[in-house]
Amino acid sequence: MTVITEEKFIGYGGLQPYVLKDETTHLQPMEFVPRPLEDDEVEIEVSACGICGSDIHQLTNGWNRATFPIIPGHEFIGKITAVGSSVKTHLMGQRVGVSPVSRSCGDCELCHNLRGQYCASKVTTYNGNFKGHKTFGGYANKVRVQATWAIPIPDSIRDIDAPLNYNHQNIGKDTSVAVLGIGGLGHLAIQWARAKQCKKVIAISTSDHKKEDAIKLGATDFLVLNQDGTYDPKYAKSVDVLLVCGSGKNTNWTKLVELVKVAGKLVLIDLPEQPLVIEPTALVYNNVTMVGTYVGCSDDLKEMLQFADETGVRPWVTTVDNSLEGVNQGVKDLMNGKGHYRIVIDGIGRQKE
Amino acid sequence: MTVITEEKFIGYGGLQPYVLKDETTHLQPMEFVPRPLEDDEVEIEVSACGICGSDIHQLTNGWNRATFPIIPGHEFIGKITAVGSSVKTHLMGQRVGVSPVSRSCGDCELCHNLRGQYCASKVTTYNGNFKGHKTFGGYANKVRVQATWAIPIPDSIRDIDAPLNYNHQNIGKDTSVAVLGIGGLGHLAIQWARAKQCKKVIAISTSDHKKEDAIKLGATDFLVLNQDGTYDPKYAKSVDVLLVCGSGKNTNWTKLVELVKVAGKLVLIDLPEQPLVIEPTALVYNNVTMVGTYVGCSDDLKEMLQFADETGVRPWVTTVDNSLEGVNQGVKDLMNGKGHYRIVIDGIGRQKE
Repeated sequence: MTVITEEKFIGYGGLQPYVLKDETTHLQPMEFVPRPLEDDEVEIEVSACGICGSDIHQLTNGWNRATFPIIPGHEFIGKITAVGSSVKTHLMGQRVGVSPVSRSCGDCELCHNLRGQYCASKVTTYNGNFKGHKTFGGYANKVRVQATWAIPIPDSIRDIDAPLNYNHQNIGKDTSVAVLGIGGLGHLAIQWARAKQCKKVIAISTSDHKKEDAIKLGATDFLVLNQDGTYDPKYAKSVDVLLVCGSGKNTNWTKLVELVKVAGKLVLIDLPEQPLVIEPTALVYNNVTMVGTYVGCSDDLKEMLQFADETGVRPWVTTVDNSLEGVNQGVKDLMNGKGHYRIVIDGIGRQKE
Repeated sequence: MTVITEEKFIGYGGLQPYVLKDETTHLQPMEFVPRPLEDDEVEIEVSACGICGSDIHQLTNGWNRATFPIIPGHEFIGKITAVGSSVKTHLMGQRVGVSPVSRSCGDCELCHNLRGQYCASKVTTYNGNFKGHKTFGGYANKVRVQATWAIPIPDSIRDIDAPLNYNHQNIGKDTSVAVLGIGGLGHLAIQWARAKQCKKVIAISTSDHKKEDAIKLGATDFLVLNQDGTYDPKYAKSVDVLLVCGSGKNTNWTKLVELVKVAGKLVLIDLPEQPLVIEPTALVYNNVTMVGTYVGCSDDLKEMLQFADETGVRPWVTTVDNSLEGVNQGVKDLMNGKGHYRIVIDGIGRQKE
């Protein structure tokens, strides 16, 4: 049974590819009739929503798979304002967070093996489709998601701090971890590696502007990647796990792979817009693994939040208010490289015009 | 203590990049003074030597790192004709085989962890360098290698059948394996996967010419890769482990990765001459791993030979005789795509002119 509601939701949407210098392409208020609340869903009133680099990829159509209009926002938090009839796990008023995945079938081999985020029937939190309805994210005032993917947030974590991303690569005391890209993802990855007591946490950036921050975040080493992809050769083959949290069209993947020890791995957490180009010798002669990772499954998210709760890992947050102007400013700041290190939309409700 | 000998060795060498249609670039007899036999080495009189695709990459300088002159041959077998003073593991007259690695330090973390083939001080069987001497391979009449890397050959395996390559990817009854490239490596990989009782063994080729052979080798499925990289879509995301045993400059790596299941892997066994170009979405959205692998360590080689002994996995061999003409013919046949599936130089001794 589905419940039809007459209430309209309001969000800030992109109607066409976002161009920084062309205000007509920027976010606009969008009112829409929400799709029916499914039996297995909860409705969340968004109180904070991160502005993620992938929102930029989508808003600008840099990944070339945006379907406009788009209301972004795939890391948000809020209280539950409606509960589907079959949901036994969540309560009205409960505080939950949502990741880039908002539904999975729950019944396939992947869902049964803690890989629901890769389920063939998964629905993404925005720019997705469910039963013929486009999905809209947390730049809207409310979002409906499958209860499985609405993750309870520990009390110690503030609304604006909840937007965390996760990676799960068996790192620990014996591991030398490197983090490329000190941004929304990378500044958390550095803290994570530090909290996991990794013996080395090497922050890598294309300049030394973020060196001081990186050390504060917990880096043991700071490595500058030169424009031609070279770096201090003493770091060659020194890394067990290289977490790529940011890359660009000039990224030299071969040189990056050469940072990795024999039998180590490079983990692609960022999703570049350009194809990867890699000399095969870099992989073959060193038995190096490259692996892509999307997001965590719902159990990963719970574990990650618990770990953050225990260890104090938190994003460094700049907030913008929940006005249209505030959110557009946040998007522009991130595009201009001013997102140090997570810009978060703070506040309940969205302006109608 | 090193033993100096006045005996000269004879091999067939390339003095410049090999061009199929230019006979002046083909192999020529080369007489050379061998480097001294080290205390930890054995000397092997070659009785059979495989002509591997990588010999072609090196002879033509397709990998762009050949140092001429080159005497190829990194999979050969023969009897031991001299034993270094500290060798306790090998006997005069013993039949052994050699892989692409002929020495490692034995003392580093990699050597201690069954990864000696990646040792920073490893010496390759040919086109390598040890104590200032170039290393020459099994296209010569005799080769000296560290005893560790001279692997005893089970009696059931004939000289000409010994040249085997190995891969070690935890495949078994629950695994769907695909093998791309039905050549010297691939025709063994298919047999291997079959002997490991993999539930699917999908042979992949760019035409159906080898379909009948693939089925005889043990393939359960045969998949044609079209020129544009496409294939029967029912095979998309169907493979746990994709063993790339052959590729070319037109290989569509993105489409190949899309054959792999979520959390599955693509193993690069072949070493392409061109950079890999891959859409990152193919890796990220499916948590696919790409890993390069060079060769086995000496324990792997022993295990592999024992497995071949037990299961009857054998290369399909065409022999050429050990004359200069015979060996050049073998190289040319392989370059012309006539190596079905392993061309082996058969016989003791090499011609002086």
